[in-house]
Amino acid sequence: MTHRYRSHTCAQLRQADVGSNARLSGWVHRIRDHGGLLFIDLRDHYGITQCVVDPDSPAFALAESVRAEWVIRVDGEVKARTPDTVNPNLPTGAVEVFIREIEILGASGELPMPVFGDQEYPEETRLKYRFLDLRRERLHRNIVVRSQVISSLRRRMVEQGFTEYQTPILTASSPEGARDFLVPSRLHPGKFYALPQAPQQFKQMMMVAGFDRYFQIAQCFRDEDARHDRAGEFTQLDIEMSFVTQEDVFQAVEPVLRGVFEEFANGWRVTQEFPRIPYAEAIRKYGSDKPDLRNPIEMQDVTEHFRDSGFKVFANQIANDPKVEVWAIPAPTGGSRAFCDRMNAWAQGEGQPGLGYIFFKEGQGSGPIAKNIGEERTAAIRDQLGLEDGDAVFFVCGVPAKFFTFAGAARSRLGTELDLLDIEQFAFCWIVDFPMFEWNEEEKRVDFSHNPFSMPQGELEALENEDPLTIKAFQYDVVCNGYELSSGAIRNHRPDIMRKAFGIAGYGENILKEQFGGMYRALQYGAPPHGGIAPGVDRIVMLLCHEHNLREVTAFPMNQQGEDLLLGAPSAASPRQLRELHLRVNLPADAKKEA
Amino acid sequence: MTHRYRSHTCAQLRQADVGSNARLSGWVHRIRDHGGLLFIDLRDHYGITQCVVDPDSPAFALAESVRAEWVIRVDGEVKARTPDTVNPNLPTGAVEVFIREIEILGASGELPMPVFGDQEYPEETRLKYRFLDLRRERLHRNIVVRSQVISSLRRRMVEQGFTEYQTPILTASSPEGARDFLVPSRLHPGKFYALPQAPQQFKQMMMVAGFDRYFQIAQCFRDEDARHDRAGEFTQLDIEMSFVTQEDVFQAVEPVLRGVFEEFANGWRVTQEFPRIPYAEAIRKYGSDKPDLRNPIEMQDVTEHFRDSGFKVFANQIANDPKVEVWAIPAPTGGSRAFCDRMNAWAQGEGQPGLGYIFFKEGQGSGPIAKNIGEERTAAIRDQLGLEDGDAVFFVCGVPAKFFTFAGAARSRLGTELDLLDIEQFAFCWIVDFPMFEWNEEEKRVDFSHNPFSMPQGELEALENEDPLTIKAFQYDVVCNGYELSSGAIRNHRPDIMRKAFGIAGYGENILKEQFGGMYRALQYGAPPHGGIAPGVDRIVMLLCHEHNLREVTAFPMNQQGEDLLLGAPSAASPRQLRELHLRVNLPADAKKEA
Repeated sequence: MTHRYRSHTCAQLRQADVGSNARLSGWVHRIRDHGGLLFIDLRDHYGITQCVVDPDSPAFALAESVRAEWVIRVDGEVKARTPDTVNPNLPTGAVEVFIREIEILGASGELPMPVFGDQEYPEETRLKYRFLDLRRERLHRNIVVRSQVISSLRRRMVEQGFTEYQTPILTASSPEGARDFLVPSRLHPGKFYALPQAPQQFKQMMMVAGFDRYFQIAQCFRDEDARHDRAGEFTQLDIEMSFVTQEDVFQAVEPVLRGVFEEFANGWRVTQEFPRIPYAEAIRKYGSDKPDLRNPIEMQDVTEHFRDSGFKVFANQIANDPKVEVWAIPAPTGGSRAFCDRMNAWAQGEGQPGLGYIFFKEGQGSGPIAKNIGEERTAAIRDQLGLEDGDAVFFVCGVPAKFFTFAGAARSRLGTELDLLDIEQFAFCWIVDFPMFEWNEEEKRVDFSHNPFSMPQGELEALENEDPLTIKAFQYDVVCNGYELSSGAIRNHRPDIMRKAFGIAGYGENILKEQFGGMYRALQYGAPPHGGIAPGVDRIVMLLCHEHNLREVTAFPMNQQGEDLLLGAPSAASPRQLRELHLRVNLPADAKKEA
Repeated sequence: MTHRYRSHTCAQLRQADVGSNARLSGWVHRIRDHGGLLFIDLRDHYGITQCVVDPDSPAFALAESVRAEWVIRVDGEVKARTPDTVNPNLPTGAVEVFIREIEILGASGELPMPVFGDQEYPEETRLKYRFLDLRRERLHRNIVVRSQVISSLRRRMVEQGFTEYQTPILTASSPEGARDFLVPSRLHPGKFYALPQAPQQFKQMMMVAGFDRYFQIAQCFRDEDARHDRAGEFTQLDIEMSFVTQEDVFQAVEPVLRGVFEEFANGWRVTQEFPRIPYAEAIRKYGSDKPDLRNPIEMQDVTEHFRDSGFKVFANQIANDPKVEVWAIPAPTGGSRAFCDRMNAWAQGEGQPGLGYIFFKEGQGSGPIAKNIGEERTAAIRDQLGLEDGDAVFFVCGVPAKFFTFAGAARSRLGTELDLLDIEQFAFCWIVDFPMFEWNEEEKRVDFSHNPFSMPQGELEALENEDPLTIKAFQYDVVCNGYELSSGAIRNHRPDIMRKAFGIAGYGENILKEQFGGMYRALQYGAPPHGGIAPGVDRIVMLLCHEHNLREVTAFPMNQQGEDLLLGAPSAASPRQLRELHLRVNLPADAKKEA
């Protein structure tokens, strides 16, 4: 008996099916009138099949009433296309279905946006009619890829010996540093749950509870502005392991990331062995702790070439402050005055005094700096950087901590402007050896640099005996093409070391109890050494789909203002709901005026 | 080089490892002093290894200081146990590790509850110290089984051609009928998101968007009292398919459920082909639309045997009201006056006037009813029910709609009391053909019976031509051992049929737009026929783990009062948080007094 709706999907029919009857259901992708014949491209999740209605078909009159995006069922005979009409780009392109019967399963009103074609539409329309937008080829494919990527991540994590565990969504505030979404409690007047910014405390609890290798495709929530990667609602591959060193985490996670990127890279190369770059080196070479390694430019320290030189702007600074350095940003193929001046103008636009440079042509360096420092120093700089005629080099001078961000931006811009990037690859690295502490200039005291709960390298001994500002943490980032996919760390699992570290940063045990109460308590009852990481799934999918916006890889995203235009959220609560939750809305003055 | 923490897990060492050195890390499960030797059972996620420290070991002094649940690393030689001390129940039971060195990785304070042993502890202690509770064997195993079950469900769904898609957690209120958890919006003063009671609207949107076969292991949220299965936070296997009939849903879902239950049944039988029982038949036979089919008792209508009989209590009711019926609940092996009187007393305790009965012995029926209706009718009843000496039968009389719940409870009680259940099986069935509408006696009008958004059988034609109270819906439940695992339905995907159905129940299109706005709009733009179901994952795991409480199969549950005792949620929000969310707390009078 034929199925009520289909004998085949719209991707299945082939030459071998010619002569048989087929029943298909799907959306009218396109309908065309060619000399009396009606051609209907019928589309479902799986593909497209060309259907034909000739004027002799009993279905012709009904077919004429059908419009794009109506859902129909068709019955008909599979026929071979004539050789000149075969479409080799379509899996079903050898055949067409001659329609004998049409049933309209779901008609459509006039479309606010078409599904066929690539025309751009305003985001508001796309989000309000997301069910139409999702029918479009690119978004449909992105969402399927997202699903496949997550599935592949799961499989690869299991292959690495991990088990997926669920942790709660209705939970307590977490000390992640961003703003929590709160959920008022009905049973406990005046109290609130929080949605997790990350399952950080729970995954550590899983380790203290003895589960050894945890992972979770975890939904996380931060009430931050929508332009961030991790704002609103996002997904991370949450990972934690016990009885491990930093190296074990790398060994476990690297094959998972490499594997999933290779699987979906579509011809792009993927780093085989992720280089480990110490934080200080990354800052010095790339001006960033998330370098895009597709950019071949590496900065170098050229302070010595400027010390006591004729370029007084730099030489005086060097003489006056031992912290001052000059960094060189080589610019292969950038060796023309016009280009250098353009970069200089860009730097001024960025609020910098300018960007000094030397460019090389006809065997010598040109520009004001070259003139001031003389031939010998100019040649020494060229030699150090391995530059040739036709190249240039730019300089930034000052206290590195203050200029490295700008230097990194200049490096990026040079890479892009000079088209130096080897684009078609996913270039990974680990950034390691983050400093545990840093100097808080404003408050004139030592403070935590990144994550207070990371284990300091050298553990208690280092904290007791070394200058805090030289202590590194077992903390690491994994970076791909200039995007930080995740931070991770070996955790500080020892209450005594934690108290000492907090003491150095000027915090008492009370802070520990307040910010990290449940976890701090758990560590008192036999905690194993453990560590982990949590790569951002949305970012991974964005990279693999070559998209630049989270909304292109999420089925039902909010808009930039945190609104769900499809279902209409957020919306007003009823007086009864507010009463049950023991809340009163306290509108700001301007909102009251509007209302 | 030996790993920092372990060369083997605590489940790995075997006879073949004798003579080699091992490094293990884990928790001190038990420590015993046997004639000077210290025995330490070292436990990790994977298993237990017995370690020994003799007084000559350099580690002896440190070993003496170690206590239960400390985390330690040990180095030592693997030795064979003497034949009389081999433990065949332990995978590592052939060997023991003679400790040469101990490192304390994580000490523990005095334990509020032990990990070793089966002693029960108050729930409050267990939840507050969940990281200890989770170390206990049974809970640890349950949580691992939960993970394996979910993993198996995913694999089986993919095998059935489904793809897992993610839907939002921060969303709009859904018309599921329970109370929403609300999330105040910071950017939109006075407005709220809701956590999804189910991704119902989104999964239907996925169908309208053309994704065909959706599933998701979905977190769902209902702000209801904690004694319900689906209260607080729970997990469901959310499923939706396009271009399907009810039968297609059964064909897709049945192998998944049967497969996962067979995989984890541990010797229990699993129904091979789920019987489909119409709703009306389930009510009549079992007094319930979620019958425990392990109970062999099936009720029968015996009204005719009482019509005009000498048992006036029943005969008069039958004569006075054509809706009155008498149902018989057979009770094999229940044939003694003592047992029947006990059941009668139970029924009175349930607020019933009593539970009439006949019991059979020495070839005849006894008891007041038998005396009143006489031998012939008594024998006819026995024949109809196939009862024998030593059996009994109980009767309920009245309007079935009013008594069936009690009759079902009596059937259950009889099954348990008489030990009739064939316990060690997972007995599944589908309940089908739910009525679309029912009579609302209070408001004297037709109303929806269960789900207003199900497709009525016979579609528009039935709505236009048939008595609404006879129309059935394409709606179904899947039931296992008396628990409803899920309701499902073929959805009403046609706006015209939906308006008609709502009209019959007395609702205008405005209700449709208000309760179901986004979805109702989507159906206007080419919606495919679709349907689905959403089995409860927590309930599946509970059945497979033979647990009766959600908290025994959830890693980090709340207590019955909706509190997370581990991390301390819910808790007060700061004035700044409240200000940012435009809220004021409005405490009830009694809470104010307490504060």
